[in-house]
Amino acid sequence: MPFNELRKDYILNRWVVIAVERCRRPTDFVKNETIRERAGVCPLCPGNEHMTPPAVLLYLNRGGQIEKAADCGDSRPKDWLIRCVPNLYPAFTPPKPGEKTSIIGEVGGGNLALAVGHHEVLVESPVHDEHPSDARITQLIYVINAYMDRLSELYSRQYVRYVSIFRNHGPEAGASLSHAHSQIIATPMVPRLVAEELEASKEQWRSKGVCAFCEIIENEKKSSRLIAENPDFVALAPYASIHPMEFWILPKKHRSTLLGLSETETGNLAKIMKACLGGLKRLLNDPPYNFGFHMAPQGEAAPYYHWHLEVYPKLAIWAGFEKSTGMYINTISPETAAEHLRGVIQQQD
Amino acid sequence: MPFNELRKDYILNRWVVIAVERCRRPTDFVKNETIRERAGVCPLCPGNEHMTPPAVLLYLNRGGQIEKAADCGDSRPKDWLIRCVPNLYPAFTPPKPGEKTSIIGEVGGGNLALAVGHHEVLVESPVHDEHPSDARITQLIYVINAYMDRLSELYSRQYVRYVSIFRNHGPEAGASLSHAHSQIIATPMVPRLVAEELEASKEQWRSKGVCAFCEIIENEKKSSRLIAENPDFVALAPYASIHPMEFWILPKKHRSTLLGLSETETGNLAKIMKACLGGLKRLLNDPPYNFGFHMAPQGEAAPYYHWHLEVYPKLAIWAGFEKSTGMYINTISPETAAEHLRGVIQQQD
Repeated sequence: MPFNELRKDYILNRWVVIAVERCRRPTDFVKNETIRERAGVCPLCPGNEHMTPPAVLLYLNRGGQIEKAADCGDSRPKDWLIRCVPNLYPAFTPPKPGEKTSIIGEVGGGNLALAVGHHEVLVESPVHDEHPSDARITQLIYVINAYMDRLSELYSRQYVRYVSIFRNHGPEAGASLSHAHSQIIATPMVPRLVAEELEASKEQWRSKGVCAFCEIIENEKKSSRLIAENPDFVALAPYASIHPMEFWILPKKHRSTLLGLSETETGNLAKIMKACLGGLKRLLNDPPYNFGFHMAPQGEAAPYYHWHLEVYPKLAIWAGFEKSTGMYINTISPETAAEHLRGVIQQQD
Repeated sequence: MPFNELRKDYILNRWVVIAVERCRRPTDFVKNETIRERAGVCPLCPGNEHMTPPAVLLYLNRGGQIEKAADCGDSRPKDWLIRCVPNLYPAFTPPKPGEKTSIIGEVGGGNLALAVGHHEVLVESPVHDEHPSDARITQLIYVINAYMDRLSELYSRQYVRYVSIFRNHGPEAGASLSHAHSQIIATPMVPRLVAEELEASKEQWRSKGVCAFCEIIENEKKSSRLIAENPDFVALAPYASIHPMEFWILPKKHRSTLLGLSETETGNLAKIMKACLGGLKRLLNDPPYNFGFHMAPQGEAAPYYHWHLEVYPKLAIWAGFEKSTGMYINTISPETAAEHLRGVIQQQD
């Protein structure tokens, strides 16, 4: 009987048991049931713009040309390709005009701060179910450009320290609406996990003189954990994956945030996202997942950090052990995950 | 419109948004549906002992007297009150005789170690559904004594560094069997969350000369977050709860592990556990939850640490934001949680 392996993350002090003794095949996780969507009108579909606040960003179709509109006042144009609106139930809200905005200074001192920031919903397409797994590449490129536009705008606010861009897919992964959308949360401090990644990357940069993630890409490209690659990006199943079928997409070009992608790079990011998320969908019958971009905070020259996208399929339940210790048990090895994802992606090529 | 609060944990660098703008009442979380148990034989019920490995600990009823049996070989007595068996699908396994057991030395150096340790199931009662919320106090005292027996035994193994005692209640919280049971996992290293708590407690001990948790008890007893209290324990909703309806049970006596409880203390722990878990059950129609004991590692004189039990009702989904940042959003304030739990507990008194 082989021993289970206890693996440490590349840079974090985070351990996972790769539980070969309770080993599962990816197909054990094929989704059988689908939670039926609640009947009713979709507030994110075209024609229902009155159900959400006015947009903070629109991509409008002007005879084949894209026109960007950043502040539309109370008008709600209907011929949009991308629509980004404030969340109706925000976790973070901007300071009111005239209100004290130097909230950042208070954070970290005591145990309490105001949840100053932004919480937005980015509607990825006028087409209800144009999720990245099935999106037209042109549309997915609009989505990535819109991420960059919002990121750039939010990082210009002095009370914003970090911007989290993430996506919840499927009700089991926390998506309350099924229309293709991402969320953007701007926070007044650097979140815990990001801070740990930054600290560990900085440490490696200092001690070894190389970027931890550049090294990961270099090493993993030769490993059985590589899933896909194009001229600008690699996708891999991380060595110490804490979620079954977890994968990361990393840019080959060393940059600390998503900002500044060239047109070619944006296209290649769209292609590898579609390939991997499409592969996951075909392999496991459209399973729920979350993804999140990891990047350097606002205003921080972070030459040691390397932005990337982490995708977490939601196939297991974190229970008492995980929640009370911060250790994880993963019943699919990343090597098996990569093998199956590679297979299903290559079939499609 | 009030601002959401951003609250930091007492000692950890962990922040949560108490989202009053998306505020929920506890009763919004009353469970409506119950996942039906799969038909079939319960492997943990009396009479089915052949379906699990031989016990590593038994409490046997010998004419009203409890007899403890630690190693029963292949025999599987049926008149047990408590039965602790190895998990059939262990995440951690003990080293084979003759095998290298100084595994601890390898951990922490590289990225890989063997998952050496133990993984056990503690059957809490011969009665299928004698969960702590409804248990006879005498039975719950057996459970706590059995925790101490296993903890003491496992901490005597040189390859064990930490023992996590936890409970998953309900399939949505990861319980694959509905028979009342806890789990015990012994690991060859100190898990991440425990290490952070130890470090932060040590720091406060050094700088302020007091135990962080003794101070928490002192302060919170006077706050609206107090839920219940008896001569030896307090139950409270922590200031920066990351789960809706989260509560902790802390011993008034400053000790670093569960070991060494007096008979009176054991009885009072049983009583406060039953009161709080019973209150949660009545309030929300038996919701799923996880709980875990937090304590000092093996072999570590940790005068600065204070063991306690953390209970996490499973009422929300951690999604892309939580998973990629390590920040949390909680839609029930701990003050509201405590008010409702106090109410339902007092009704029962």
